[in-house]
Amino acid sequence: MSSHSLDRALALAPVTHAETEAVFSGHYQGLYANMIGPFGGLMAATVLQGVLQHPSRRGDPLSVTVNFASALADAPFEVRSQLARATRSTQHWQVSVMQNGQVALTGTVMLATRQDSSWEATELVMPAVPPVTEVPRLDTEGFFPPWLRHYALHVVAGGIGPQTPPVTGRTSESTLWVRDEPPRALDFLSLLALSDVFFPRVFVARQQMMPAGTVTLTTYFHADAESLARQGARELLGVARGNRFHRGFFDQDAELWSHDGELLVTTHQVVYFKG
Amino acid sequence: MSSHSLDRALALAPVTHAETEAVFSGHYQGLYANMIGPFGGLMAATVLQGVLQHPSRRGDPLSVTVNFASALADAPFEVRSQLARATRSTQHWQVSVMQNGQVALTGTVMLATRQDSSWEATELVMPAVPPVTEVPRLDTEGFFPPWLRHYALHVVAGGIGPQTPPVTGRTSESTLWVRDEPPRALDFLSLLALSDVFFPRVFVARQQMMPAGTVTLTTYFHADAESLARQGARELLGVARGNRFHRGFFDQDAELWSHDGELLVTTHQVVYFKG
Repeated sequence: MSSHSLDRALALAPVTHAETEAVFSGHYQGLYANMIGPFGGLMAATVLQGVLQHPSRRGDPLSVTVNFASALADAPFEVRSQLARATRSTQHWQVSVMQNGQVALTGTVMLATRQDSSWEATELVMPAVPPVTEVPRLDTEGFFPPWLRHYALHVVAGGIGPQTPPVTGRTSESTLWVRDEPPRALDFLSLLALSDVFFPRVFVARQQMMPAGTVTLTTYFHADAESLARQGARELLGVARGNRFHRGFFDQDAELWSHDGELLVTTHQVVYFKG
Repeated sequence: MSSHSLDRALALAPVTHAETEAVFSGHYQGLYANMIGPFGGLMAATVLQGVLQHPSRRGDPLSVTVNFASALADAPFEVRSQLARATRSTQHWQVSVMQNGQVALTGTVMLATRQDSSWEATELVMPAVPPVTEVPRLDTEGFFPPWLRHYALHVVAGGIGPQTPPVTGRTSESTLWVRDEPPRALDFLSLLALSDVFFPRVFVARQQMMPAGTVTLTTYFHADAESLARQGARELLGVARGNRFHRGFFDQDAELWSHDGELLVTTHQVVYFKG
């Protein structure tokens, strides 16, 4: 097994396997700890891991939705994956993460075997930013939750805390370079985890920390295996912004660009906040 | 029962009810027909209906994800809803729509009992557009699929077909006023259906129809009961745009604003296309 912390944190052991169902066991042991329970991006990647490791898996991730019902305790858990339906080019999986007999997360994963298109286009525009080498790296010791030490972040705009650069555009918008720490060649699992690397937008808009947590996350994959290979272990550019903050919840959208300007994922989430 | 076509199309009959599970039966009878099977927004609303009609339902919709595995045939179907987990303020439901012993759709629904926040903000900006009375209504006879006749659309920018107004901004962006036809007081079901009212963005970007269909839809609700009551049966303003079109799939984001400028939903989907 790779000794990278992400691979250790995502390790699952098969318990039972049938053609359309599988149960895996995992053990959250405090790696990638958030304020309560693990980093949501780690759990989303765990849901995807429970599909990608199934022998019936066919195709690559197109869409993943994970709903967070409760934080995981530092204890064993189970991932249950069920292939609900397969078509010629897609698979529809339903996944639950169970701990102590209760559902902690629900999720759906869609895999697709991509065809070539005669027409391709990217209409979203990558912002013009300085190269990562010209942006100071965020000091993630002390002030931030432990999971952040597993990432190298260079905040271009819209940070929080003592090192914050000036905010541009919307008050809830951040632009940053990010990669796994230590560096790790990008795969679908790490890309999904990275899609949740953006702080709750309320921290940025209000320039203060407060109780907040993702309740649902949906990530759309534009990257294919070739995109991942081109990116390797280099930094991705991420941009995130909030839309509406209303009666205890808000939504935020984000995207991750490859080092050379390819849109790899678009991602959306709803976050609970108290304040 | 209301005689509005949407209520007739969304009618479900209870088959079995337990505390955390229910089965409903429905019958797709060709209302809101798309090129193949029903309009996706109708099916998303059917998934939500299977939760809202459950006696254990508590709270209002916060997030709905529906994955489309196959088009429904003009025949009976079943909606199976399961309450996977309830917390103090949320419910996590898993839903499947079955037809002929196969899963046609999978979905997850999160309900929430909202608390008041001391801080509120909308960072997304509603575009400045002419009032609906100054924008010609789209003639939905003939050229378009039948479901569109259940909506009144006034396309401000980014249309398709012979009546298309000039495209502004991204080539895949559309701005339009829309309501149910005939008018119907807005509720969570119609709002969810409306979140899928935007054409596949590839039609707009390329100004041509081609085989395309939503494979997964996620809608976030910002509207609460008071928002719905304020809106009534008036037109909503919708804006939609595509991000990346790549190897047979693309994603599109959209939002719906109330008549008086309140952000009611943000919505995201991945669409299959052949071309």
